[in-house]
Amino acid sequence: MTASRRTIHIHCDQWHLAWDHSISPIATIRSGETLTFDLLDAACGQITENSTIEAVKTLDFSQVDQVNGPIYVEGAEPGDTLEIEMVDLQPATWGWTAIIPGFGLLADEFSEPALKIWQLEGGANGWGEFAPGIKLPLEPFCGEIGLAPAASGAHSTIPPYRHGGNMDTKHLTKGAHLYLPVEVTGALFSIGDGHAAQGDGEVCGTAIETPMQATLRLTVRKDIQVPEPQFLTAGPLTPRTNTAGYYATDGIGPDLMEATRNAIRHMIDYLQRTYHLSRADAYMLCSVAVDLKLCEVVDAPHWVVSAFLPLSIFTNPA
Amino acid sequence: MTASRRTIHIHCDQWHLAWDHSISPIATIRSGETLTFDLLDAACGQITENSTIEAVKTLDFSQVDQVNGPIYVEGAEPGDTLEIEMVDLQPATWGWTAIIPGFGLLADEFSEPALKIWQLEGGANGWGEFAPGIKLPLEPFCGEIGLAPAASGAHSTIPPYRHGGNMDTKHLTKGAHLYLPVEVTGALFSIGDGHAAQGDGEVCGTAIETPMQATLRLTVRKDIQVPEPQFLTAGPLTPRTNTAGYYATDGIGPDLMEATRNAIRHMIDYLQRTYHLSRADAYMLCSVAVDLKLCEVVDAPHWVVSAFLPLSIFTNPA
Repeated sequence: MTASRRTIHIHCDQWHLAWDHSISPIATIRSGETLTFDLLDAACGQITENSTIEAVKTLDFSQVDQVNGPIYVEGAEPGDTLEIEMVDLQPATWGWTAIIPGFGLLADEFSEPALKIWQLEGGANGWGEFAPGIKLPLEPFCGEIGLAPAASGAHSTIPPYRHGGNMDTKHLTKGAHLYLPVEVTGALFSIGDGHAAQGDGEVCGTAIETPMQATLRLTVRKDIQVPEPQFLTAGPLTPRTNTAGYYATDGIGPDLMEATRNAIRHMIDYLQRTYHLSRADAYMLCSVAVDLKLCEVVDAPHWVVSAFLPLSIFTNPA
Repeated sequence: MTASRRTIHIHCDQWHLAWDHSISPIATIRSGETLTFDLLDAACGQITENSTIEAVKTLDFSQVDQVNGPIYVEGAEPGDTLEIEMVDLQPATWGWTAIIPGFGLLADEFSEPALKIWQLEGGANGWGEFAPGIKLPLEPFCGEIGLAPAASGAHSTIPPYRHGGNMDTKHLTKGAHLYLPVEVTGALFSIGDGHAAQGDGEVCGTAIETPMQATLRLTVRKDIQVPEPQFLTAGPLTPRTNTAGYYATDGIGPDLMEATRNAIRHMIDYLQRTYHLSRADAYMLCSVAVDLKLCEVVDAPHWVVSAFLPLSIFTNPA
C-alpha cells in the first residue's frame, strides 16, 4: 500500500503535559503508517549540554516528562490494541543524569541535587563514559510511550498507567513491538523521554536523559487484547551489556519496596568501597546501569530483590 | 597447601530442618577446603520419579526444604564473610514441579494440586522437555544456601534471611561466588534444594526440583563484610536461555506485590491463549522459565513489574 510508506514528521515543540483525551490531535494517520518524532529531553529543554548544577536547582518540575503528540490513528476503537514498532531510535550526542531532590527510590537519603552531563559517542550503537574506566554501551529507548485514557481529565505524565505512559522500560529498544490497550477512539498516541541507557528500576529517577529522534510504526490490532502493556523484545536482552559477569547485592525481607531500597543501598556501598565513587555518583551509576530482579517472591514471609551490576562497563572490574 | 585438596563427602541423609546454631556440625573443615554434597530433592525424598499427584496431596510440608550440614568452618567468626564457590552442580536425571495448595504467588487462585515429572537429559548442560515443542536448557543451582543465625532457636528453612537460606536465586550457577555474613563461630554452613532450572521469582513456589550433587569451596574472608547476601555471577546471565527474544507482560500499580501478581496473571493468560496450555501448566511454566524484573520503581505512585518469557524455549515461538 502506498499509504503506509508515508512518514509523518513531528517537531520537538509539538508536546503536551498530560494524558488527557480532550487534547486535540496534532496529526492523523492510517494504521500501519510511520512517524518520526524529534523529541526534546525529559526536562523539556531546561537542561542542556552546557548546564551546571544550577539547572537542577531551578528545574521547574511541572514542565518535565512532556510527551509529543497526540496522534490520532484512524480506525482505533476502545478495546483494540495499538501495536507500536520501534523502527529506529537515535539519541543526541549528549545526555544528562541528575539527582533531583524529592524524587527517586532513596529520595530521603539524597537531599542534595547532582548533575552529570554525558558526551555520547557513536550514535545508537555508541558509548557514554561515566568516569575514567567506566563506559556504558548505549541501548536507546523512550521512557514515555502511551495513549490517552478513557477517564476524563488531565492525568500526570509522571506515573505509568494501564494505557502506558512513563513505563521507563529499557527493553523497548529498536526492533521491539509494544502493545497498548486503546481506551478512546483514535487511540491518541504520544511519546517522549528519550533514554540512551538505563538500569532496570531507574533508581535515582533519571537515566541517561537525551533528546531522541524516534521513528515508529503504529498499527491497529483488532485481533488481540491486552489488559496492560505487553511487548516483544527485539532479541536477546541487553546484548551489549550482558557480555561478562555481574556483582549482585540482595535485599531480603517482607516488603518488596524496602527490600529494593536495601539492595540499592548495599550496591551504593559496594560501588563506593570498590570503585571509589562518591555516594551521589554511585547512586546515579545504579540508575543508569544496575538491574533490579525479583529473584524470589514465594518463600513467605521474606522476598529476595537483587541489584545486578554489569562488570562489562568497567575497564578493570574488581 | 595439601589441606585444601581434601574433599569431604556429605551424604544425602545428613540433613536438618531448621537454621539453628544449636544443631551440632556434621563435619569440620579448614578455610579453602572443598565439599561434595549429595542432596535429596526439596521434598526430602517424598516425591520420586514415579510419583503421581497423590504424592503432592499427601505431602508433609513440615519435612520440605531440608538442608544438608551444618559444616563448621575453622576460623570463621561473627563479622567475617563466608565465600562459597560453586565448583560443580550436577542435577539428577529427573525432576519435578508442583503446585502445592496454599503455597505460591497466586495461592488463592490455584487451590488444586498439580505435579509434573521431568526427564532431564544431558546432565548439567542438558535439557528438560516441558511439553512437545517447549524445551528448557538446564541452568542448575541450589535454592538453599545459608549459615546459622546468631539468634537462638529454630528458624524455618522456608524463608531466606540476611544469613542466606532459601534465596532461590537462579544466578548462583557453576562458577558463581556467593558471600554470606557469618553470625556464629564456625559459620555453620548448610545447603539443599537443588533446582535444574527456574525463572526469577519461582512464582508457583517450585522450580525443576531435583536431587543434586553439589561441590563447593568454602573460604573465610576477613577482608570483606556483607550486610546481606551478595554474589558474583560466573559470567553473562542465563547464557543458554538469553538467545532469542522475549514476550513480556506488565503489572503496573502502587503495590509491588500486586503488580507482580498481575504481571504473572497476564502471562498465564498469554500462555493459555497463545500456546494452548492449561492454566496450571501455564503457571508452572512461569515458575520454571519466566523472569520477573522491576522495570521502574520511581515514577510515583505507580511501579512497573514485568514478566519475561524467553522465546528460545519454544520450537515454534508465536
